Amino acid sequence: MNIGYLGPVGTFSYQVAHRAFPEEQHTAYTTISECLDAVAANEIDVCLVPFENAIEGTVNVTLDYLYQNDVPPIQAEYILPISQNIMVNKQRSSDWQEATTILSHPQGLAQCHDYLTKNFPHIKREAVSSTAFAAEYVSTHPDEKTLAIAPLFAAEHYDLDVVRANAQGNMHNETRFIALSNRKLAITDDPIETKTTLLLKLPDNDSGTLHTMLSTFAWRNINMSKIESRPTKTRLGQYFFHIDLDVGADNRLLDNAMVEISLLGGTVKVLGSYDVYKIK
Amino acid sequence: MNIGYLGPVGTFSYQVAHRAFPEEQHTAYTTISECLDAVAANEIDVCLVPFENAIEGTVNVTLDYLYQNDVPPIQAEYILPISQNIMVNKQRSSDWQEATTILSHPQGLAQCHDYLTKNFPHIKREAVSSTAFAAEYVSTHPDEKTLAIAPLFAAEHYDLDVVRANAQGNMHNETRFIALSNRKLAITDDPIETKTTLLLKLPDNDSGTLHTMLSTFAWRNINMSKIESRPTKTRLGQYFFHIDLDVGADNRLLDNAMVEISLLGGTVKVLGSYDVYKIK
Repeated sequence: MNIGYLGPVGTFSYQVAHRAFPEEQHTAYTTISECLDAVAANEIDVCLVPFENAIEGTVNVTLDYLYQNDVPPIQAEYILPISQNIMVNKQRSSDWQEATTILSHPQGLAQCHDYLTKNFPHIKREAVSSTAFAAEYVSTHPDEKTLAIAPLFAAEHYDLDVVRANAQGNMHNETRFIALSNRKLAITDDPIETKTTLLLKLPDNDSGTLHTMLSTFAWRNINMSKIESRPTKTRLGQYFFHIDLDVGADNRLLDNAMVEISLLGGTVKVLGSYDVYKIK
Repeated sequence: MNIGYLGPVGTFSYQVAHRAFPEEQHTAYTTISECLDAVAANEIDVCLVPFENAIEGTVNVTLDYLYQNDVPPIQAEYILPISQNIMVNKQRSSDWQEATTILSHPQGLAQCHDYLTKNFPHIKREAVSSTAFAAEYVSTHPDEKTLAIAPLFAAEHYDLDVVRANAQGNMHNETRFIALSNRKLAITDDPIETKTTLLLKLPDNDSGTLHTMLSTFAWRNINMSKIESRPTKTRLGQYFFHIDLDVGADNRLLDNAMVEISLLGGTVKVLGSYDVYKIK
């Protein structure tokens, strides 16, 4: 199989792709949208993209794409522990504290916000497309006083010095990655849970009817483990809801709840019923 | 009164501060957190910060601050129509299409994402602290092939050429700004609505109890106009909810609902009951 992931080499998605599918072929994509485009067009068998971080919340690019486009179902979810580390070119190890710029993905910068504000209040924070790009840039620009925030394996891959490990504010940081595919995945690990993810749009975008819609699950004792809203991008105050339910596929009560929501005027898009795995 | 806003001169917050409080003194702050810190410490009388954009959704920095800190109540909300425009230094008007870098606030870049992808697929998008900073940078660096995405009044203020007006993807774009203050504000305009905003944390962070909590409003015919979740930043899967209700202050039914939520184990923080105004 060909596994597409949010590249380049050295990103968290790269790490998940290699841990979850070590024997398969891997293809890096520059953006989340391009990776999702590729699996929708059957150019790859599986698309692995980040979906939610414990600190920064949902990855809006992924959620908005899933709402707006037709994609293969989610077949599995992987939870990866996250550490963000500050690293420098080895030729700059002695004067790294004089750095004037620090590069990372916006979520890397956000996760290290408290550390930077306290220790480097005047450093220029520059957002780039990935943590791996930041590490690669620092490795190829020894002449610049620039640091990168990236995972530890990026330091190994690009031969950089880690000058501050675990610079992220929150020690329990984790990120969820989803695997979308038209194929059932044969996974031998033990899952930690099973769930169904759906997107719900209310009739007339009336948040007041949300309670009625949620009643269709509550009456049937279907537990909801997550609910969040996102703007539909049409006008202020119009939302859709991203809901996780603690049930798997082929659940008769869930089927009945879906029919009832439809009768009540709601629109449901099921993204998949799947197992969740923890990456150590 | 002294009105603090998210600066520098020329931001959307600046525009709201001057339209809503034309006769008062205005103080610019570099970040949303500093502006909120200042009103919490009574250094300013009113703090005006962005809270939600129609396309990008809630301004998470603002919401997270309100969840984590004690602040004066929200006294009013202002809705401002948003246009994003591409502008260039007047010395570069002839060769602006050769620009290699475009600067804006991350939301400015996100709102013009489709236009840039179509027309400038290879331009380097650089996130800076505000649209006004982007405009100021372009005005002071005529030697660089750099564009800015900013509101029209920033082009006037920094004497730049607007080369593409309304480059944002969505024509109905608007942003909500909230005014926090310990003082009641004397506003003569007619409000378009009245609402109460609260933050709800469920007992044991169990999303399954959300339905029960929302029932306390539904049974009393208190309409909910918005609900969204945000991670509590403690660990993956723990959220608080930001809820808007279509009721004003001194509502006996609302008081009863709050008591009941507390008895059910929920924690509620009321951010304020206030009127909403539209800025033309």
